Amino acid sequence: MQFDSLDDIRAFCRDLPDGDTSAADAAARRQWTLTKPPGSLGRLEELAIWLARWQACEIPKLERVTIAVFAGNHGVAARGVSAYPQAVTAQMVANFANGGAAINQIARLCDADLRVVPIELDRQTRDFTAAPAMDIDEFLTAVDIGYRTVPPDSDLLAVGEMGIANTTTAAMLCAALLDGFVATAAIVPLARLEAGIVDHCRAGHVSAETGHRGLLRELGLDPLLDLNMRLGEASGAGVAILLLRAALACHAGMATFAEAGVSGAGK
Amino acid sequence: MQFDSLDDIRAFCRDLPDGDTSAADAAARRQWTLTKPPGSLGRLEELAIWLARWQACEIPKLERVTIAVFAGNHGVAARGVSAYPQAVTAQMVANFANGGAAINQIARLCDADLRVVPIELDRQTRDFTAAPAMDIDEFLTAVDIGYRTVPPDSDLLAVGEMGIANTTTAAMLCAALLDGFVATAAIVPLARLEAGIVDHCRAGHVSAETGHRGLLRELGLDPLLDLNMRLGEASGAGVAILLLRAALACHAGMATFAEAGVSGAGK
Repeated sequence: MQFDSLDDIRAFCRDLPDGDTSAADAAARRQWTLTKPPGSLGRLEELAIWLARWQACEIPKLERVTIAVFAGNHGVAARGVSAYPQAVTAQMVANFANGGAAINQIARLCDADLRVVPIELDRQTRDFTAAPAMDIDEFLTAVDIGYRTVPPDSDLLAVGEMGIANTTTAAMLCAALLDGFVATAAIVPLARLEAGIVDHCRAGHVSAETGHRGLLRELGLDPLLDLNMRLGEASGAGVAILLLRAALACHAGMATFAEAGVSGAGK
Repeated sequence: MQFDSLDDIRAFCRDLPDGDTSAADAAARRQWTLTKPPGSLGRLEELAIWLARWQACEIPKLERVTIAVFAGNHGVAARGVSAYPQAVTAQMVANFANGGAAINQIARLCDADLRVVPIELDRQTRDFTAAPAMDIDEFLTAVDIGYRTVPPDSDLLAVGEMGIANTTTAAMLCAALLDGFVATAAIVPLARLEAGIVDHCRAGHVSAETGHRGLLRELGLDPLLDLNMRLGEASGAGVAILLLRAALACHAGMATFAEAGVSGAGK
C-alpha cells in the first residue's frame, strides 16, 4: 500500500475490513458456557469478544503484540510550551533504545514488542500557531511511516507517541489500543471519514491531559483505565494490554459448566 | 496469635504497624529521579510508594503474592436470593482445585499463589434475616482462619470470596488489595475500630454490585479498576495485581535522568 494523495487515504479508510462478527458471536456464546454467572467478568468479556472479532477467531491470542511509539519534534516547542528542551526527544529515543524508559518496563511485563519510530527528529515541523505544521507531502509521508510500522500479522497494536511539544499521526489498521490524547486525536479525522474505524479501537486509558476525556466521549470510547497517567510513550495503552491478557486468560482457560460439573443457574 | 475474644481482636487491630514512612519517602524521591515528568505515571507512582511503605523498602517487590479466596455457605440462601443452588459452592471449590475458574487463570497470569479456603461448607451459617448468622465463637473461629491463611512473609495479599449467597470475614494484616463488595464490607468493622487500617488497603476494583461504590467512598478508597465485574473469587483484585506489577516494573526498572543522560525540566 502506498498513499499518494489524501484520496488514497480516504479510499483505504472506507474499505477497511469489518471484522468477523460470526467469530465474535462464537466467542460470546463461549462466555455463556464458562463457570461464572453470565456477564460477571464485565468488560473482560467484552474485550475477549472484541479481539475475537478482529482476529476472526473464537479464542483469540495475544502472541504478537506490538507497541508503536512515534517520536517527533514540533515547531511549536519554540514557543516554550514545554518544561523540557527539544533535545530531550532524541535523548529519550536513546533511553528507549537502552531500555530505561517506562514503556520499556511495561512492554517487558506485558510481553509486547516495542517499536520506537523517530520521525525526522532533526527536521521539526513548522510552528502550527503560525502555519500548518506539515504540508500534504509531509503528511502523506508520516501516514506511510505509520502504516509500515504495523507488522501485518499483529494480534494487537498499541499506539502512543513521545516528543517534546508532541503530536503524531498513525494509521489504524487492526485491533488497536489507543494511548493518550495525541493517539486519540490522530484517529479523529479517520473517524470523521469512516465512523466504523472506531470499532477497531479501544481506549487503553483516559489520561490526565485536559481534553482527553471529552475527546473519548465524542468518539464513544469508554477508557479501560483511569489512573491519572500523562506520560505518553504508549504507557497507558501498555498497561491496558495486561487487562486484555487477563480477558483472554479467562476466555481461553476457564472450564465450562459441563467440563467442571458445576450446576448452572436455576438448575 | 490466637483470638479468644472480641477484645483480643480490638487490641490486635489497634496495635497494627504503621508502615515505614521513611521507605515511602525514599520511594517518592526515587520517582522524582526517573526519566519522566514528575507525577506523569499517576497512580502507578502512588502504588509503588504505598508498597514501599508496607514492605519497608525503597524498591519493593512482588515475589510472594497471595490471593486468598474464602468460600462459605450461607443460611440466607434458603430464601432463594441466588440464581444458583447451594451445592454450587462446593462444586466451585472443586473447580478451583482443578484450575478451571476465572481466578485460576488470573492468578497464573499475575504470578500469584492462590489459596482457596473452604469454611465448613457442610455447616452453613444461620439465615441472617431470622437470627445472627454466627455466634461469637463461630465468628472468632472465622477470624482465626483468615489470620492463619496469610503467609507471614507475603509481599501482598489480595482478598476475595466465593459462596452462593456469599459473605465472608477476613483479617487484614499486611498490604492488602480488596476485591468486591464482600471483602470491602469485611473491613468496615475493623476501620470503625481503627481508621488507620484502611491505609493497609487498596481497592482492586469497584464491582457492579449495588452498594460497593458507596462503601468504597465511605472508606475513602478510590478503586484501581472499574470494569463492571461482579464475579467475586478475588477476580477484580487479581486483575489489579497486574497494575501493581506495572507500577513496580517502572519504579524498579526505569533509568534515572542522570543514568540516561536526559535533560531535566527547565535545564
